[in-house]
Amino acid sequence: MGDVPILHEYAASGNCYKIRLTAALLGTPIERREYDIMAGETRTAEFLANVNANGRIPVLQVGDRFLPESNAACFWLADGTHLVPYDRFERADMLHWMFFEQYNHEPNVATLRFWMKWIGEANLSDAQRLQLPLKQAAGAAALKLMDEHLSAHDWLAGHDLSLADIALYAYTHVAEDSGRFALADYPAVQSWIVRVEAEPGFVAMGA
Amino acid sequence: MGDVPILHEYAASGNCYKIRLTAALLGTPIERREYDIMAGETRTAEFLANVNANGRIPVLQVGDRFLPESNAACFWLADGTHLVPYDRFERADMLHWMFFEQYNHEPNVATLRFWMKWIGEANLSDAQRLQLPLKQAAGAAALKLMDEHLSAHDWLAGHDLSLADIALYAYTHVAEDSGRFALADYPAVQSWIVRVEAEPGFVAMGA
Repeated sequence: MGDVPILHEYAASGNCYKIRLTAALLGTPIERREYDIMAGETRTAEFLANVNANGRIPVLQVGDRFLPESNAACFWLADGTHLVPYDRFERADMLHWMFFEQYNHEPNVATLRFWMKWIGEANLSDAQRLQLPLKQAAGAAALKLMDEHLSAHDWLAGHDLSLADIALYAYTHVAEDSGRFALADYPAVQSWIVRVEAEPGFVAMGA
Repeated sequence: MGDVPILHEYAASGNCYKIRLTAALLGTPIERREYDIMAGETRTAEFLANVNANGRIPVLQVGDRFLPESNAACFWLADGTHLVPYDRFERADMLHWMFFEQYNHEPNVATLRFWMKWIGEANLSDAQRLQLPLKQAAGAAALKLMDEHLSAHDWLAGHDLSLADIALYAYTHVAEDSGRFALADYPAVQSWIVRVEAEPGFVAMGA
């Protein structure tokens, strides 16, 4: 297991970026393999059989084992480090924000970004078009919840930056890409974004 | 912290049941406080201010601290026990299945159960009605992925039952409630359900 972990990814995906950011903050080297999701490269028979039966990136390859789900891959990288709180309650509270990210934030903030910037509003299905206002409202509620918490705390869980901040930074800092959210509405989130970007080792999404 | 944790819940919710099942398998006593979500009892000003600003159950109260997100509450209960694999990769792989549950399984299998059995098909909005076939297909894909994995493994992560099995058992074993899934289509899932229910300390959802 002295091998360098391999990140199977699509670089513009915030879910993939979370893993690169975690590795960078830890100083852990990773290899990167790029797939063009728009060309279906994660739905080929070979990808489904060998990398992820769920047809999704990111997947972190550790030796000959494959770990799907961005937040699980971040946890593998950071387990036992300062990015995972040592205190039992704070560790679970970090996971609370990471599950919130996947349930309340990503399907709204990230999906709207993908629909509006990658697919394009003109190409949306009727089912997607009817969901636009619902996802906009749910995304705004998720950002508001973060803003309220961050008005009283520097970080989402515990007393320092943790995987919770990395997981939620990824799509929050590009939330305006969808044209449906304005970060100026969430001043405590804006201050937190500045704090995350000042962390030693921080790398930008496009790096 | 010698206090018994308090589960703020709606008993028919699979997300709440996960926490009761985890506590039961560990022999950990918990108190239960019931809220009627259909009557808006988790959206009152008092609930939002004191229990969960996200207006959702379950929330696990530990002393004077509140932990939302079902899978995070399960992690707090089980951290350091046999329900969380000791091996680093297996521990992250358990989280992989728990994030899969919240992203790919719950919004389809559980949401269809809620829409069809609680709200009723006649009362669905246009946006919900257009999503029915999409959620049915996505839920079937999630069950098929579990079935393929469980055809070759007794448990989802590692070599024993873990929180991954508890998290996915909760809504899988009642997937047929929506009228949109047949568990007979997933024989390895059916065998795994029998194994989960044979665990010492197992409690049923209605208990």
